[in-house]
Amino acid sequence: MKIALCQIDPIIGHLDYNKKKILDGYKKAIDAKADLAIFPELSLVGYPPLDLVEKQEFRKAVNKAAKEIALQTTEVGLIFGAITEDNDKIGTDIHNSAIFCFDGKIQFVQHKTLIPNYDVFDEMRYFDSAESVLVFKFKDEKLGISICEDIWNDADYWYRRRYHKDPIQELLKQNASILINISASPYSYGKRAARKEMLSVLTKKDKISLAYVCCVGAQTDLIFDGASMCFDENGNLVKHGKAFEEDFVIFDTKEKYVPITKCEESFEEEVHNSLVFGLKEYCNKLGFKKVLVGLSGGMDSALVTYIAVKALGAENVNVILMPSKYSSKGSITDSEALIRNLGIQSENISIQPVVDETLKQMKSIIKNDVKSLTEENLQARIRGLYLMTYSNNNGHLLLTTGNKSEMAVGYCTLYGDMCGGLAVIADVYKTDVYRIANYINREKEIIPKAIIDKAPSAELKPNQTDQDTLPPYDLLDKILRMYLEENKEYIEIKDVIGDEDLVKRVLRMVDMNEFKRNQAAPALRVSSKAFGYGRRYPIVQGWRK
Amino acid sequence: MKIALCQIDPIIGHLDYNKKKILDGYKKAIDAKADLAIFPELSLVGYPPLDLVEKQEFRKAVNKAAKEIALQTTEVGLIFGAITEDNDKIGTDIHNSAIFCFDGKIQFVQHKTLIPNYDVFDEMRYFDSAESVLVFKFKDEKLGISICEDIWNDADYWYRRRYHKDPIQELLKQNASILINISASPYSYGKRAARKEMLSVLTKKDKISLAYVCCVGAQTDLIFDGASMCFDENGNLVKHGKAFEEDFVIFDTKEKYVPITKCEESFEEEVHNSLVFGLKEYCNKLGFKKVLVGLSGGMDSALVTYIAVKALGAENVNVILMPSKYSSKGSITDSEALIRNLGIQSENISIQPVVDETLKQMKSIIKNDVKSLTEENLQARIRGLYLMTYSNNNGHLLLTTGNKSEMAVGYCTLYGDMCGGLAVIADVYKTDVYRIANYINREKEIIPKAIIDKAPSAELKPNQTDQDTLPPYDLLDKILRMYLEENKEYIEIKDVIGDEDLVKRVLRMVDMNEFKRNQAAPALRVSSKAFGYGRRYPIVQGWRK
Repeated sequence: MKIALCQIDPIIGHLDYNKKKILDGYKKAIDAKADLAIFPELSLVGYPPLDLVEKQEFRKAVNKAAKEIALQTTEVGLIFGAITEDNDKIGTDIHNSAIFCFDGKIQFVQHKTLIPNYDVFDEMRYFDSAESVLVFKFKDEKLGISICEDIWNDADYWYRRRYHKDPIQELLKQNASILINISASPYSYGKRAARKEMLSVLTKKDKISLAYVCCVGAQTDLIFDGASMCFDENGNLVKHGKAFEEDFVIFDTKEKYVPITKCEESFEEEVHNSLVFGLKEYCNKLGFKKVLVGLSGGMDSALVTYIAVKALGAENVNVILMPSKYSSKGSITDSEALIRNLGIQSENISIQPVVDETLKQMKSIIKNDVKSLTEENLQARIRGLYLMTYSNNNGHLLLTTGNKSEMAVGYCTLYGDMCGGLAVIADVYKTDVYRIANYINREKEIIPKAIIDKAPSAELKPNQTDQDTLPPYDLLDKILRMYLEENKEYIEIKDVIGDEDLVKRVLRMVDMNEFKRNQAAPALRVSSKAFGYGRRYPIVQGWRK
Repeated sequence: MKIALCQIDPIIGHLDYNKKKILDGYKKAIDAKADLAIFPELSLVGYPPLDLVEKQEFRKAVNKAAKEIALQTTEVGLIFGAITEDNDKIGTDIHNSAIFCFDGKIQFVQHKTLIPNYDVFDEMRYFDSAESVLVFKFKDEKLGISICEDIWNDADYWYRRRYHKDPIQELLKQNASILINISASPYSYGKRAARKEMLSVLTKKDKISLAYVCCVGAQTDLIFDGASMCFDENGNLVKHGKAFEEDFVIFDTKEKYVPITKCEESFEEEVHNSLVFGLKEYCNKLGFKKVLVGLSGGMDSALVTYIAVKALGAENVNVILMPSKYSSKGSITDSEALIRNLGIQSENISIQPVVDETLKQMKSIIKNDVKSLTEENLQARIRGLYLMTYSNNNGHLLLTTGNKSEMAVGYCTLYGDMCGGLAVIADVYKTDVYRIANYINREKEIIPKAIIDKAPSAELKPNQTDQDTLPPYDLLDKILRMYLEENKEYIEIKDVIGDEDLVKRVLRMVDMNEFKRNQAAPALRVSSKAFGYGRRYPIVQGWRK
């Protein structure tokens, strides 16, 4: 069977746009003489639609659009993802479904069985589980159709399984001859290799070919990398879609392909590409042409500026330098070097007059001394004020530049450097920020070496460096990785690190700064455990003594 | 059987504190010659513990604390709530359980069967459902023990049920002689009456008495009102715990009580009390003694200031007046009248010098004209800057004063009037803000009548009123209520309101301002659908054309 994998980028809730994408892909599949065109999970709706699916009017519109799509089908099969309703008066009443149509109508609907509800997934909030799975006979094949998570519960592969049921085994018992899985699988570093490994083991063991189609695109913080995959009956990856762009892949299950054994991208390249893509998508989908970055002379804002240039073009990136009396000379000259290297527009405006005026005014009501931290925050906030004022007047999207290490320990100022619509690198540890900068400079110096080499500093008081307050970043990031990504706790971490007080202090900083992260801009997710939607911690709590 | 309902206020994750609360309550029950002391759902852990339960070390500590509690029991029964683990290697591995101990050990554990996963509830993320329910024989009674949601699925009461199972019917089939339900049921207006009605119907129909114990306290945005209830076999409410404070209630199932037929509190009184309580709890649990409010002369900041005084005492509330050249004379005099009425400390500092200095500086980099909206936002942000500077230097908690109508349509400035650690009235519509103000003034004028009577204005440009931009608040709130609380959509709302363009414009404003609310402070929840955790909408979407 000749299957066309249509790796599209839907917009959440934009049914006309998504319907057109599906029909365009379907026509392309017909032109390519495919027997069947398949589209990702919830491709008509966009993923994740969140509480939108709780609106009756939205559900009706999806139902109408699904029927309109079906009406246009010929004898070539079309499988797309949408929500469907049942009416048993128990549960949520909605399913996450694969809709199979040909000859002008919907011929078969398979609901999703395994409903993920961990990390960034909240699907049990919305979707009832399928009561049963059935193979569907189509053109001499028995198609075993499943949706995303359905294929992630193999009893042999996983040491710990999330679900009792295994819909893939059900389909195999019914003698499925080809497996089809339609997915919306969010990107994180390493996820693609994990998908490939898991699917390869499964197809090899069960001696069955698989067409696995993924959506691509970014939806606010969640990035979907596409990279659809096709496996032969020996577990070989034989076809795949591009990463971070739409694609159209033909997979003929009867054909002999040469297995693909391409090298994986490096960590640096993959995360770099994902950030560029995530930012581009956010701007495109919200209609922002230009972005704004406050350039401090430090590593983080340099990286964010570079990513913005790659995503939107140099002509669409503006930066503002905002020195104070604590800014080093290097801050300015290094920033200017970066501006030249990137060929972008810049402005330079001192914050000092407004800092001074504010302090002068505030002294009439602050009776005690102005604390150092107060003055540091004040400077960060006046920079935020400048950037937001410029952004409001020119319609630019302000990007925030904080990294994951800072966000973790709260080394950032609410309403100051945290201002902005999107946090580009807030899921990238400081040590990884350097790795990515070095990757960017692999052929020539784009990010000035001076920026990479200098000691990190907020430059909010004389001779300040980050390490006055924080442990060295390699040590800090090691602790944070264990605490966040590996979900370890104090005892386990201290056993590795040794320094009990340090570990206690770091974990306490992370916990106590939940209130700041609660007001942070959405952050492009590139790790398996990002702050935001996928990590839910109480602001008020007393766990750590 | 003599049952002591121990309506306690746990701190999330603070196991020592919660353990002591449980043991203290248990001793009190022994002193009162009770047969059994019962505590709320997850009373050892605090509710909702969120991702804390995913930490192994936390689970171990809970397990240890539970055993320590059990060790101290005599022949008097003790039921408390905690997480427990199984090890079947499928699913989440944790249960939300009622732990029954006496004679020095844990005698019986009943897991929760119905796992809520809607609105503010995310329990399926954490908890596996009970495989079975069993009555437990104790002192000649067969106790039917259930946890919160377990009792909310009666087939006769609910037109639409969330779950297929009904653990209460299971317990009744096993001839339970008394029902016990341990709960953590978040407050919203009208919820208490709904609980009473539902439980009364159930106990009357099944001819069984019920002890229903709830936790009390606020956990960041979620308020738990307590108000535990006891019903006799005829469905009469015969005993109840206080609202918004800890309580200890003895219920003897053998005794004949006079049914309670007390009047419900009014909407104004109930919401007023919940806000005072929620703010008090947030400050107490985080260790803030003093709060700060920016007093504009308008209704919202006046109400928040009043609530702060009720919650923390006049001596702990500071306000700052921050006039600009657009401020009316009334703003100052009305604020001064409020300050006198409440007896609080105030400061007065003009924002004009800093506004002027910022504009002067910014003009060097803003080539086009400064837009009116830019200048309006700038003023709001300089007020935010003043307040945060004062707050940083004095350790006061800054309260934000925006109401639900404003938050809904984005009539607020990010990093400006949205600055603050807790949004006190962001779940209260503007029209309800007035109702509560009038309730506060029921005996004497505390909030100056001039503040209540004047046209709402942000005073960010000459002669501005809210209604230059927004429809009248009674109309706006009517639309918002339908859209938010009643979950209606465009067609249904327009059929009621008539004005198609207006409805379209309002819904579009709500959708488009998701990005602002995403960075908002947590808001005390008093409605059935608050912004924040319980309402999840995509920032990037294209549903509304």
